Amino acid sequence: MTEREIKIGFAGLGVVGQGVWKHLERNASALEQRLGVRIVLARAAVRDLTKSRGVTITPEQLTDDAIALARDPSLDIVCELIGGTALAREVTLQALAGGKVVVTANKALICTHGAELFQAAAEGGGHYLFEASVCGGIPIIKTMRESLVANRFRLLYGILNGTCNYILTRMERESLTFHETLQDARRLGYVEADEALDLDGWDAAHKAVILAYLAHGKWFNLEDVDVQGIRNIDLPDVQWANSLGYKVKLLGIISRDLDSNRVVIRVHPALISKRNVVANVDDVFNAVSVTGDVVGTTVLIGRGAGQDATASAVISDIADAVSAIRSGSRALSSEVDLEFYRRLGADLALASPAEIRSAYYLRLSVLDRPGVLADVATVLARHEVSIATVIQRSSEETDNPVVSLILTTHECSEASMRCSLHDLDALASVRSRPLLLPIVDFDN
Amino acid sequence: MTEREIKIGFAGLGVVGQGVWKHLERNASALEQRLGVRIVLARAAVRDLTKSRGVTITPEQLTDDAIALARDPSLDIVCELIGGTALAREVTLQALAGGKVVVTANKALICTHGAELFQAAAEGGGHYLFEASVCGGIPIIKTMRESLVANRFRLLYGILNGTCNYILTRMERESLTFHETLQDARRLGYVEADEALDLDGWDAAHKAVILAYLAHGKWFNLEDVDVQGIRNIDLPDVQWANSLGYKVKLLGIISRDLDSNRVVIRVHPALISKRNVVANVDDVFNAVSVTGDVVGTTVLIGRGAGQDATASAVISDIADAVSAIRSGSRALSSEVDLEFYRRLGADLALASPAEIRSAYYLRLSVLDRPGVLADVATVLARHEVSIATVIQRSSEETDNPVVSLILTTHECSEASMRCSLHDLDALASVRSRPLLLPIVDFDN
Repeated sequence: MTEREIKIGFAGLGVVGQGVWKHLERNASALEQRLGVRIVLARAAVRDLTKSRGVTITPEQLTDDAIALARDPSLDIVCELIGGTALAREVTLQALAGGKVVVTANKALICTHGAELFQAAAEGGGHYLFEASVCGGIPIIKTMRESLVANRFRLLYGILNGTCNYILTRMERESLTFHETLQDARRLGYVEADEALDLDGWDAAHKAVILAYLAHGKWFNLEDVDVQGIRNIDLPDVQWANSLGYKVKLLGIISRDLDSNRVVIRVHPALISKRNVVANVDDVFNAVSVTGDVVGTTVLIGRGAGQDATASAVISDIADAVSAIRSGSRALSSEVDLEFYRRLGADLALASPAEIRSAYYLRLSVLDRPGVLADVATVLARHEVSIATVIQRSSEETDNPVVSLILTTHECSEASMRCSLHDLDALASVRSRPLLLPIVDFDN
Repeated sequence: MTEREIKIGFAGLGVVGQGVWKHLERNASALEQRLGVRIVLARAAVRDLTKSRGVTITPEQLTDDAIALARDPSLDIVCELIGGTALAREVTLQALAGGKVVVTANKALICTHGAELFQAAAEGGGHYLFEASVCGGIPIIKTMRESLVANRFRLLYGILNGTCNYILTRMERESLTFHETLQDARRLGYVEADEALDLDGWDAAHKAVILAYLAHGKWFNLEDVDVQGIRNIDLPDVQWANSLGYKVKLLGIISRDLDSNRVVIRVHPALISKRNVVANVDDVFNAVSVTGDVVGTTVLIGRGAGQDATASAVISDIADAVSAIRSGSRALSSEVDLEFYRRLGADLALASPAEIRSAYYLRLSVLDRPGVLADVATVLARHEVSIATVIQRSSEETDNPVVSLILTTHECSEASMRCSLHDLDALASVRSRPLLLPIVDFDN
């Protein structure tokens, strides 16, 4: 039997690209046997043709013209592993226009141009596969689209950024400050060149926007999502949270009352009960908890980044692409799904602060003098925020007139909390901007 | 556009069957839109035609001849939800011989007749799909076969039986005895009619055998697997484990040094560190941890049983079946995979006790008199078992001459431990059969 050949081109051959190339080469015979085709690592487009790379590739296979590679009619699959949203978008559109399958790990691109790219895939008759773009090795895309196809998603939340989780874990375990652990994370290469992506929550927000689309069928603008990073979290917060039975985790949350057309999408550090499985996911690991209306809650935990975990996800998409190509089918095709998502997402809007309810953790730096707690409590009462616990600690420096006042609240609306923050900020006894963290209370 | 109709027949319409029927009916329009076909709940074969059921079905759609239903040429998909291994096997073989897709939750049948049934699917040109058979709503089959296709599996382990997990969790949380929690589990309907399936570990063992096939390509005999249930675990074990930093969980474990042709498959209660995510999966939840050589460790947690969670998994298989049928493809076809698994599993054998190494927890009931600890320590030393910790507690009844002696050991071979047990049993001061539990030490 003559086996069909599947030719793969790589747009970008950096860390992830080399990982995919290496593992495809190493596993070639098993994969080929399993998939019933011959896999050819045909070409790669790179920026610098002279740079040496950790894979076996001849100079003839290299080009610096990624667009030409995307248009190459001999290729069946293009792995877009360039990153960014400019050249990567053009490469993807060109390849999809030619009916190819594009496999990607590019969350920023999907988050910004997802609607356009999936439309292009449907029109070109190809596919746009992106398992590696959300939480690397965790198969959350396939799980939501295929395994949980019978479900509607009331709640999704999770630890979507491994770098922040690493930092928060080490702070808690070793009583280190944010800046101490950040140094280590940088040294280990865990922090993106653009540090805001990790530390300010944007990487997690990209993933949250993609998950929100998969759950609810609408592409939300990144700018409309409430995103807060971990730069304001310091050791005392982690320790106080711990003493109250919580861990501090940067969470991405997508929640929706299934009977309403309002959805909450947010990324912020939050206090989460230690009894929750997700709270015990530490170090660089990611976790996603999905609550479906049929299956209940399913939690997936794994490596969200790194060459090998991401390569594993890219290869799973390549295998799906091969199945679709080999059967000459549109079995994966997005055109049916697109229409499904379009109807699903019609009339959906982000919830307003008045509609969002949560309990909160509030850290204030206040002057250590009589009447301060009364002032703070009065402000909260004015906005109908009910206090659950109060901790006040004196400074260890005896002549420091500023102390930390930690409050937790019962559930209240975010609008009330924002008004309270505004008024607290105006009190003379409050010396720096209060830190506000939601306390999330999920069953699992 | 005339949509293709996909006709589904149900062999068995019990708890799970009714769940599938109900959710398919409720979600019909969304699913049909997504899959591009019209789904027809055509017929059901039941034992008792007169019994009332919680779904909308006319008398004309019912038959008591499951074999005739399996042969009905108008059906595309048969859901085999009869259970057991006799009629269910015949129904499955008949439907597969006709080129149909059979979807099942029947772990016992796959465990016993998997080789025959997958062969029949390949020969008939249909498919045999079984996501619901292992851990209900947890998509472990799809994850292993598709998402982790680039990986070889060094280690799989997990909490594969929700009933045992429920019992062990309540014992630990509420300081209840095994028998007290068992009464509650029975009352809540959590225990199978054949209690040995749950309590003696056989349900978990069925799943372990299926996972071992998926990981390593060989069907092992259930009789060859080392299976131990939880009937011998009592409150003191759970409490002692807790004081040592562990939880007691019934674990299914499939481990393999990827360079050898030996695999370990076992089901037993074990001590697992509280720092491990799996140790924190409580109540009726299941968890499976998969370590792939590319992706690293991925953990999936969810509901392993129950009408809705199982129905969710069955429907995901139906959706996959529809994709394959709709595209007229063999995209899911097992014939390529079968050959892959055949080569993968060639020459594989179970490891012998001499090859298996573990640390152990050992509880002995001994006479409270001088020299007993010396006797026990001498036996262990003779077999080169090194003691890590010792706890001896006097009985609370002052005139009870028997006390519990708890030992943990460093890693040793199972063969050494078995010889030690044999010799300990022969000591006059040891008053009942010792309880031996492995202490598993997995990174995650």
